[in-house]
Amino acid sequence: MSVPRARATVARMLGYVPGEQPTPGERVIKLNTNENPYPPSPSVLESIRRLEGDALRRYPSPMADAFREVAARVHNVSPDQILAGNGSDDVLQIALRSYCGPGDVLASPNPTYSLYPVLAELADVRFITVPWEDHWTLPVAALLAAKPQAIFFANPNAPSGTIVPPADVATLASRTDALVLVDEAYVDFADTNCLGLISQYENVLVTRTFSKGYGLAGLRFGYAIGHPSVIASMAKVKDSYNCDAIAIAAACAALDDQSYARDCWDRVRVERTRLTRELGRRGFDVITSHANFVLATVPSSVDARDLYQALKARGILIRFFDKPELQDQLRITVGSPEENTALLASLAELVPSPAEA
Amino acid sequence: MSVPRARATVARMLGYVPGEQPTPGERVIKLNTNENPYPPSPSVLESIRRLEGDALRRYPSPMADAFREVAARVHNVSPDQILAGNGSDDVLQIALRSYCGPGDVLASPNPTYSLYPVLAELADVRFITVPWEDHWTLPVAALLAAKPQAIFFANPNAPSGTIVPPADVATLASRTDALVLVDEAYVDFADTNCLGLISQYENVLVTRTFSKGYGLAGLRFGYAIGHPSVIASMAKVKDSYNCDAIAIAAACAALDDQSYARDCWDRVRVERTRLTRELGRRGFDVITSHANFVLATVPSSVDARDLYQALKARGILIRFFDKPELQDQLRITVGSPEENTALLASLAELVPSPAEA
Repeated sequence: MSVPRARATVARMLGYVPGEQPTPGERVIKLNTNENPYPPSPSVLESIRRLEGDALRRYPSPMADAFREVAARVHNVSPDQILAGNGSDDVLQIALRSYCGPGDVLASPNPTYSLYPVLAELADVRFITVPWEDHWTLPVAALLAAKPQAIFFANPNAPSGTIVPPADVATLASRTDALVLVDEAYVDFADTNCLGLISQYENVLVTRTFSKGYGLAGLRFGYAIGHPSVIASMAKVKDSYNCDAIAIAAACAALDDQSYARDCWDRVRVERTRLTRELGRRGFDVITSHANFVLATVPSSVDARDLYQALKARGILIRFFDKPELQDQLRITVGSPEENTALLASLAELVPSPAEA
Repeated sequence: MSVPRARATVARMLGYVPGEQPTPGERVIKLNTNENPYPPSPSVLESIRRLEGDALRRYPSPMADAFREVAARVHNVSPDQILAGNGSDDVLQIALRSYCGPGDVLASPNPTYSLYPVLAELADVRFITVPWEDHWTLPVAALLAAKPQAIFFANPNAPSGTIVPPADVATLASRTDALVLVDEAYVDFADTNCLGLISQYENVLVTRTFSKGYGLAGLRFGYAIGHPSVIASMAKVKDSYNCDAIAIAAACAALDDQSYARDCWDRVRVERTRLTRELGRRGFDVITSHANFVLATVPSSVDARDLYQALKARGILIRFFDKPELQDQLRITVGSPEENTALLASLAELVPSPAEA
């Protein structure tokens, strides 16, 4: 007997690296992992505080039935079109393991959410990426040429913040039998979404999360909306009780309070416009964002990694991706008005103004 | 485009069938899924009610650091020997996927927890079972002969309630490099446990849950205790944020209140003794249990499935396993004194007394 060896796939992998999280009590302006600057609806805390011990003593509903009812009503679908998960990461993993076995192909445009290759590697699935076409257009033909069992992409995309129109997703879905998973983690901050496609295209699966739009990253709750037979297959793959009783109650309350959520989204969009404009004035090239963050190319006189470090030294966390194609870019979460003002003030000191440069 | 086909493994499987759960509001005596009859410590509800919206707005600690600290203190190990999960089902799946790839072997004695073959099937892992030796003795040689990458068993075992002495587990661990996972979901109700083995045997991993001993089946929180390098491998496989902020706070509070928990365990053990004695008086053959349930062979005049159905019609749920080797047995969760009294009263009416039979 000795330390057992993890299987080769696991031994060689690095795993997904989550964004930096400050230690409890540390005071930072946190604009690096796309949390909502606003807390969840007050009704969420009320729903949690109302829970009795007996609700925790028993196993929760395996399919989160109460949540399915609320989601079906809000999205105008039927409850059997909803699958809830422990964060949308759980939902993504369930979808992958339902449709791709060892040696199968998961295809994605590149860059997109950096978790997908990690999930594929863990499942011994081949991950094939194809570059986005010009202006972040969905590379339909190249994705199909990979002959995938599943296609995943974030829409709005991360880290670009760009959005693919539903008509392009429809074109892709109509030309394949593969599962087309549209990861709508950021869709609450956009003008369009792909929910309307699921009644027409049985292979389209839309995923949502409470981590961004509902101010509940700490809750770990996400869900998929799709064809009942896709949902039924995924139900066989998920853990029996993958959502806890508290999270189910909180998610119901959050989704039910659409007016609170919409007010938060509107505020974020107003600040996104300001942040985009002010960064542009400082010489950054900012892609028009449909999410709660912006991807900004730094001015040519600036090193993106150095700027990230300098902001971090001042207690402001943003995201620098150490990847060749993203070396001159920074992803900045849209914070509260005060947080964004503090960021812009620091940038005014750290980045020479375009006139001076 | 059409309904996409789930991969063959998923298409042909049935999935794990959770125990029956009554619909909300239904009044039943629920002795079928081994929940604790007592609610969690009051400090658990206090910890939940103290949470502020901002704690939910941000991502939780990826490794549940606060919980690791409490668990390290309570179990006298170091924090890097603890991995927390979304229920011990999540922990079991993470362990399996860390040590067994497609075509590898997971071995278990039979019968044991019925989730293991489902997890193996989903991971394209071969599941090899070997019968328990007489008197539920661990079949060490037969397990090793399967040449497994991992060996899983519940201890105390489900559905038998029997326990393997730590010395036998040590013998097994000393003779293999495979991961030896001791699923201690029910250990809080037993006299011994295998925690003492982990400092000596680097391939022993012990898993625990809050679902049984801590009255928190609704919370979905479990954890593994093992060698730091085993825990580090598992950390690469788990979802980035697999435990939510509320569950982490609640689990810390529950584990910290050992005196409340021990009082519940003692009460369950007193009732287990009574249930065993009274079932024996009615002609049932009850295996001595170290868990919070008993496995009882029905008297020869009784059909186990009929009795299960008759009790269900009276609003009392117990567990009948539709498996050849368990056709004449019933698994009964130890309930509160009142619940057990109601069960025994119904049995007095439904089962002819041994004198009459």
